[in-house]
Amino acid sequence: MAETFVVVGGDAAGMSAASKAKRENPEMEVVVFEKGEWVSYGACGLPYYVKGDFDDIEEITAVPKEKFIEERNIDLRTHHEVTGIDPDDSTVTVETPEETFEQSYDSLLIATGATAIVPPFDGVELEDIYTIHDPPSGEAIREAVDRSGPSAPETVGIVGGGYIGIEMAEAFRERGLDVHVFEMLEHVLDPFGSMVGEVVEEELRDNDVNVHLGTRVEGFDGDDRVQAVRTEDETIPVDMVVVGVGVDPNAALAEEAGIEIGETGAIAVDEFGETSADDVYAAGDCAEAEHVVSGAPDHVPLALTANRAGRAVGQTVTGDPTPTGPIAGTAVVKAFDLEAGRTGIIDEERAREAGLDPVSVTITSSSRAHYYPGGSAIEIEMVADADTERVIGAAMVGEEGVTNRVDTVTTALYAEMDVQQVEYLDLSYAPPFGPTWDPVLTAAKVLNSKLE
Amino acid sequence: MAETFVVVGGDAAGMSAASKAKRENPEMEVVVFEKGEWVSYGACGLPYYVKGDFDDIEEITAVPKEKFIEERNIDLRTHHEVTGIDPDDSTVTVETPEETFEQSYDSLLIATGATAIVPPFDGVELEDIYTIHDPPSGEAIREAVDRSGPSAPETVGIVGGGYIGIEMAEAFRERGLDVHVFEMLEHVLDPFGSMVGEVVEEELRDNDVNVHLGTRVEGFDGDDRVQAVRTEDETIPVDMVVVGVGVDPNAALAEEAGIEIGETGAIAVDEFGETSADDVYAAGDCAEAEHVVSGAPDHVPLALTANRAGRAVGQTVTGDPTPTGPIAGTAVVKAFDLEAGRTGIIDEERAREAGLDPVSVTITSSSRAHYYPGGSAIEIEMVADADTERVIGAAMVGEEGVTNRVDTVTTALYAEMDVQQVEYLDLSYAPPFGPTWDPVLTAAKVLNSKLE
Repeated sequence: MAETFVVVGGDAAGMSAASKAKRENPEMEVVVFEKGEWVSYGACGLPYYVKGDFDDIEEITAVPKEKFIEERNIDLRTHHEVTGIDPDDSTVTVETPEETFEQSYDSLLIATGATAIVPPFDGVELEDIYTIHDPPSGEAIREAVDRSGPSAPETVGIVGGGYIGIEMAEAFRERGLDVHVFEMLEHVLDPFGSMVGEVVEEELRDNDVNVHLGTRVEGFDGDDRVQAVRTEDETIPVDMVVVGVGVDPNAALAEEAGIEIGETGAIAVDEFGETSADDVYAAGDCAEAEHVVSGAPDHVPLALTANRAGRAVGQTVTGDPTPTGPIAGTAVVKAFDLEAGRTGIIDEERAREAGLDPVSVTITSSSRAHYYPGGSAIEIEMVADADTERVIGAAMVGEEGVTNRVDTVTTALYAEMDVQQVEYLDLSYAPPFGPTWDPVLTAAKVLNSKLE
Repeated sequence: MAETFVVVGGDAAGMSAASKAKRENPEMEVVVFEKGEWVSYGACGLPYYVKGDFDDIEEITAVPKEKFIEERNIDLRTHHEVTGIDPDDSTVTVETPEETFEQSYDSLLIATGATAIVPPFDGVELEDIYTIHDPPSGEAIREAVDRSGPSAPETVGIVGGGYIGIEMAEAFRERGLDVHVFEMLEHVLDPFGSMVGEVVEEELRDNDVNVHLGTRVEGFDGDDRVQAVRTEDETIPVDMVVVGVGVDPNAALAEEAGIEIGETGAIAVDEFGETSADDVYAAGDCAEAEHVVSGAPDHVPLALTANRAGRAVGQTVTGDPTPTGPIAGTAVVKAFDLEAGRTGIIDEERAREAGLDPVSVTITSSSRAHYYPGGSAIEIEMVADADTERVIGAAMVGEEGVTNRVDTVTTALYAEMDVQQVEYLDLSYAPPFGPTWDPVLTAAKVLNSKLE
């Protein structure tokens, strides 16, 4: 009898795993249970849908549902919610609108994703308060923005200055709304460090976004619809709110089954994505991954990690053990006319927790040769461990030439290069694309001289 | 008595060495002999000067002559030509317009650069035939283009489809000239491989550049001024010609002194840039460098290599031995609206000569998420060694997002990563900057599956 691979959750990790398993072993029975309607979508596209960069929300779907079923022969069932896992019995309990049944498995992947956090703000149940995490939530926000007449929103409050908050600020400004961003911490884009945060804040203000830093939201006022955001200091009238303060891994299903949860709150896994239960794997936003610099488990819910880990699990369950691979926490974001990026460990405290002795420098270089028209500043913070002189992270920001320069450093992190090795890379140069010494080289050179 | 460091040649390598030595040891006497007038210029800027991107040619000077002398206390003497080296006696012979004298040294750096090759074409002595290699040559070409009246050129022939030929084609089209590019080989940009060559040729033709491939120039016709380029097959009327068929290292001075010349024709050096003569170093376009993939000596005359090797020699001669570092042959070029890049070893024959067994794939990906507006194709050729599965090179081309992606691969070359390691890099992703799987990851993934 053919083996059965059951996948819980039909988004990036789940569908990558299902597709890979079926491709590697067409005889395998691959069943995916998705509790909602949408599968395989890229939530990263939602801010650009709201912005109006494209009009058909189906476009954010990587592969349509029918293709998984008809071309890839995957038994994909939407509106099927897995409500229990019995690892001893190797079964899951599935609920549909019509029935509840048991499904046995030989291998199981938990790919339940993450849920947008909504803190228990006073008044959070009011209308026109949104999170943005799946296509229906994106559609709801766009519909709200599209409204005409007296209910058309003019001012929006964004709670959280992370990358989703920044992307939504740009989208709403493009749609002509007044925008207030409320960030509890001292700077927006906290994982990018304060240097990047400050530059991005200036860009936000240059684009008429009201940035409220170090500001804790206490609640929302209004009758039915939200009418104001209340902070410690003031009350700011708004017509709608988007809450983007991060996500929590959907680990409850695993936890209830007695599967080990890591310190991050996500499901603990080994290098193959296997959980503490035999033949039960976890991948994507619900699972931990090993950080390439610290070697410790981390939780960085991003699209590539989910795709890659899912694909690796899909291969592993066919009998070809494949590591899911470590992560570097690499992230890039567009903020109006700026590109910002980060990789590895930047935060000093976080570095010390990982047993490292961080030393950092910040340099300013430029995106083109000084005589070539149209260049702009690139600022790079690069961090090394004083003991090993290894590069452990970097953050950068500028109008162009930032995102892929982050990847030079990412690659160096995986290679465990020290600053001198990075300084000696034969990086590309031509006047339209940078100075003779690439900004990354300059950062490494300055950092190296600081370590001497 | 203070030690004396003598430098022959005042461009990138020479002035980097002089500056570094003086900074590390202010007591050291640092003498630079430059036979011409110009020092420390970036010849890479000349096409953009001709194009009209900037009007003051002084802008391509990294550091003005006076600054070296007055601020950095370097004994920099222009119009001083070194005509002989006596390594046994540790002296050089210097000629000026007024006198000839001997100068003794404790350490010597040969940084004589390279000379644009001018094949012995019939008619090569005619007027309005140029090479482009230093500020006066750039000025001469721009003056020719700027001419008005009957002597104003309307059609230009470019001999050589390397990166200088491509950059000059763009410059001349911008200035309104008809352009013919003559390339002896089957494709332009030979070191970038045929995939990139073909895409760039299409771009050239889309910009009304006449591209003559596999076409050997036999000579030039004209009375005083050049009036036509003669090939095997036809005679094409032109009003001016630029010859850009490569450079030869200026190694004669070293050779005459009995210093070893490498197989590439450039001066052979060890890892510190030292030649076969004690205390005599060579750096920049006149010297070889070790290729990071093959480990063999190579000659890649580019700006960063010269700057870096010069700087390292400047440090070494102060008593702190510093390797010049290997090179990867990384190069990028703008061709109208395209960016093209290459790194490592792409050519199959060249790979086999280095004892490698090349396997390559070419993939097409895109510069932005499929739903994000304005994206364009990125094509990547990636090459690995079948035996070790190490990535050994890559070439890529597209309208955006190319140049720094080359550097991801460059970094992987230095780290001796295999294709699986590259496939597992946690590279950056956001919809405005690429697909979830970065094009570099996709190339590695496809190459990896070909190796299995």
